[in-house]
Amino acid sequence: MIHKSLIIIFLFLLFIFPSSFAQNKDSLMIRQIYSEILTHGQAYPQLEYLCKKIGARLSGSPQAAAAVEYTRYLMDTMKLDRVFLQPVMVPHWVRGQKEVGKILNSKQIGEQIVNVCALGNSVGTGKGGITAKVLEVKNFEELKNLGKGKVNGKIVFFNRPMDATKFNTFEAYGGASDQRGAGPSEAAKLGAIGVVVRSLASEIDDFPHTGSTRYQFVRQIPAVAISTKGAELLSSLLKNDTTLLFHFETHCQMFPDILSYNVIGEIKGSEKPEEIIVVGGHLDSWDLAEGAHDDGAGCMQAIEVLRAFKALNIKPKRTIRAVMFMNEENGLRGGLEYAKIALENNEKHIAAIESDRGGFTPREFTTEAAKEILQKMQVWTPLFEPYGINAIKQGGGGADISPLRNQNTVLIGYVPDSQRYFDLHHTAQDTFDKVNKRELNLGAGAMAALVYLLSENGL
Amino acid sequence: MIHKSLIIIFLFLLFIFPSSFAQNKDSLMIRQIYSEILTHGQAYPQLEYLCKKIGARLSGSPQAAAAVEYTRYLMDTMKLDRVFLQPVMVPHWVRGQKEVGKILNSKQIGEQIVNVCALGNSVGTGKGGITAKVLEVKNFEELKNLGKGKVNGKIVFFNRPMDATKFNTFEAYGGASDQRGAGPSEAAKLGAIGVVVRSLASEIDDFPHTGSTRYQFVRQIPAVAISTKGAELLSSLLKNDTTLLFHFETHCQMFPDILSYNVIGEIKGSEKPEEIIVVGGHLDSWDLAEGAHDDGAGCMQAIEVLRAFKALNIKPKRTIRAVMFMNEENGLRGGLEYAKIALENNEKHIAAIESDRGGFTPREFTTEAAKEILQKMQVWTPLFEPYGINAIKQGGGGADISPLRNQNTVLIGYVPDSQRYFDLHHTAQDTFDKVNKRELNLGAGAMAALVYLLSENGL
Repeated sequence: MIHKSLIIIFLFLLFIFPSSFAQNKDSLMIRQIYSEILTHGQAYPQLEYLCKKIGARLSGSPQAAAAVEYTRYLMDTMKLDRVFLQPVMVPHWVRGQKEVGKILNSKQIGEQIVNVCALGNSVGTGKGGITAKVLEVKNFEELKNLGKGKVNGKIVFFNRPMDATKFNTFEAYGGASDQRGAGPSEAAKLGAIGVVVRSLASEIDDFPHTGSTRYQFVRQIPAVAISTKGAELLSSLLKNDTTLLFHFETHCQMFPDILSYNVIGEIKGSEKPEEIIVVGGHLDSWDLAEGAHDDGAGCMQAIEVLRAFKALNIKPKRTIRAVMFMNEENGLRGGLEYAKIALENNEKHIAAIESDRGGFTPREFTTEAAKEILQKMQVWTPLFEPYGINAIKQGGGGADISPLRNQNTVLIGYVPDSQRYFDLHHTAQDTFDKVNKRELNLGAGAMAALVYLLSENGL
Repeated sequence: MIHKSLIIIFLFLLFIFPSSFAQNKDSLMIRQIYSEILTHGQAYPQLEYLCKKIGARLSGSPQAAAAVEYTRYLMDTMKLDRVFLQPVMVPHWVRGQKEVGKILNSKQIGEQIVNVCALGNSVGTGKGGITAKVLEVKNFEELKNLGKGKVNGKIVFFNRPMDATKFNTFEAYGGASDQRGAGPSEAAKLGAIGVVVRSLASEIDDFPHTGSTRYQFVRQIPAVAISTKGAELLSSLLKNDTTLLFHFETHCQMFPDILSYNVIGEIKGSEKPEEIIVVGGHLDSWDLAEGAHDDGAGCMQAIEVLRAFKALNIKPKRTIRAVMFMNEENGLRGGLEYAKIALENNEKHIAAIESDRGGFTPREFTTEAAKEILQKMQVWTPLFEPYGINAIKQGGGGADISPLRNQNTVLIGYVPDSQRYFDLHHTAQDTFDKVNKRELNLGAGAMAALVYLLSENGL
């Protein structure tokens, strides 16, 4: 009799608290997902291979082609329902011979070499380089106030630092990155012959940080990033010596577009295969290092999501795709092509998760979703708290998935801790040894758990 | 007229929402504290000096004496109300000549050197070392079940790994550390002649992790930690070959207690000087590396708290002390002495904050406080959220401050992210280059902000 009454109580509880029973089931599955990834995860050794055996993989490079083959191979061995390449034409920019940067004719120190690197997509100076007086400015307003008269024939030096007082370094980055993106064109409009941009870096060090510049419809002038240490030196010399000269020589060049690929692996949904959930990162990296955190980490985490699902024999209700996007760094062509084809094929992408903020310890998810969808997702927050994800909140998704915005796709960004990212980002320092295995795996776990919840519950 | 009515509205609001005005004032001051530390913080360069110019500083070593002088000097230059040394007798254990560990007579691989290091406070084998058959166990129950007959004359090999599925690595550490602390004595009770303990490490690597063992009232037998890679090898060989021998030689030795010091800097409270708030870490470190995260970081953060208060001209209502405790690693004598003298002097320590979990990115504060005090502190959580502290919750304070427990002191632990700590902890890897400046400063900011709130509001 006790047995029977317990069942009745159980059914009664199930009736009045259905969501907590569902949450408990989800909580157990998420526990399994994390345990699988923390004990048998492959993201770390696979990232080591990508970084150490393939290395830097800028779009159009032989290494980018190798990375396409490698990730296809990885997913081919996983018994997925489908692994395929999506052709896409990408820009083919080549840095060429190592850059030279020099302070000349300084009253204080004479001549001094400083570390510079060409900005991505920029034109080169060619042999002999350029040499000119320097105008230091902190922002475009200052530049415009100087006017054509003063700027003409000069090298413009953008020297606004990232704001160290911001906790989230991506905010500090966002507050300074216009100098790199639009600086060269803004300076060209006023007749400058070259641009030097302070590296977008959290610290004062010797590493120049590359990254794309976007030429507008003006003359394309050569542009370099200078290390923050170099920027501090140059700025301090300029204070008492406006006649010093700066010299730089770059040999970068843009070649015709070249064929490359997005790499995609898929587990077909068991109940709603037409509803697709994307999880991804970008496969290309800058040419100065190994692209370990940016964004080898995100790619290997996305593949790990599929591996964990297969290892645990989870049959997702909806279709899950791991996508390695090509060409995020200097063109976004992979992301654009992916969204274009999704539209042509009338595919229904309910959600896309991007990991492109490094393989660091987990903090949050951010989403561009409307309020009611956000609130639905926030019900899941307690499921993530035991694993270091403290919030699901309004915020950016990611560059590669952003072209899906118009297709009613909920865009979600995986947000790890940001403190170390801009020591490494786009520099020779972004190497495998900077990645911690547990941090990388916890990111994969967070993404896998969220994919699981999205697949089970939809949005 | 408008002016006057605005004042009336303001006063009315102040009357009905006094706490939110207080919080807003606190929020602004905390913003100032973080900004000061993130832009002018000295913890990072000072930690570099401690690590690189002084280095490993085990209690009783010349370097420990140098660290006492260095931190006293740092605080002497800060115009504090008082800087003083608190004498304390500490154990003086010396590792001596580098340890040797070897697998011998393995059917599979013959002879193989493996990385070992003596456990802190352990006795040495002396010249010639010890050589014996090996019994692998996972826990004390297994050991006891083997009994004297089997254990006698053998080397016991404790090989229970840290549980990788736990998010908080300190929990995983706590679940495995009995092997190191009590393993040698448990094995000695059954007649073992030596002990090999699997290193308490998150990863499989070549670094042995030292740490204290505590001899009970039994024969003291020599004990070493073996690297996790070595442990995996030894365990796999033992599976098919119980006759292999293990050999190790250690030359460590315990010398008579020696005089050392806690180093203390103080800002006197302006309203309630008799109420003391301690913020601290431990100045000693293991002898294998530089003690960067364990616990140079905590010491430099504590000093930074005082520096920031002086730089911002904050006159705290209550007395604030930065305390560098001596001898946390192999005796806790500094912590015990501090509490003993506090009692003798009838001092009233309302709260003590310890940072001894590494200089990593902030996560939480934990406290041993009773529920009503905890709830009072939790009101402050929103003030910390913008800086990555997501919770103030029940949990441990810290070893050095634990002897204050009986003096009605609220014990608080600063809890940074734990993922990387046990890659470094007690190994040759705990070096300055593993510390990130922003992470270190954010920890100092969190501690300074909490000290400020405690000083303004009491408990």
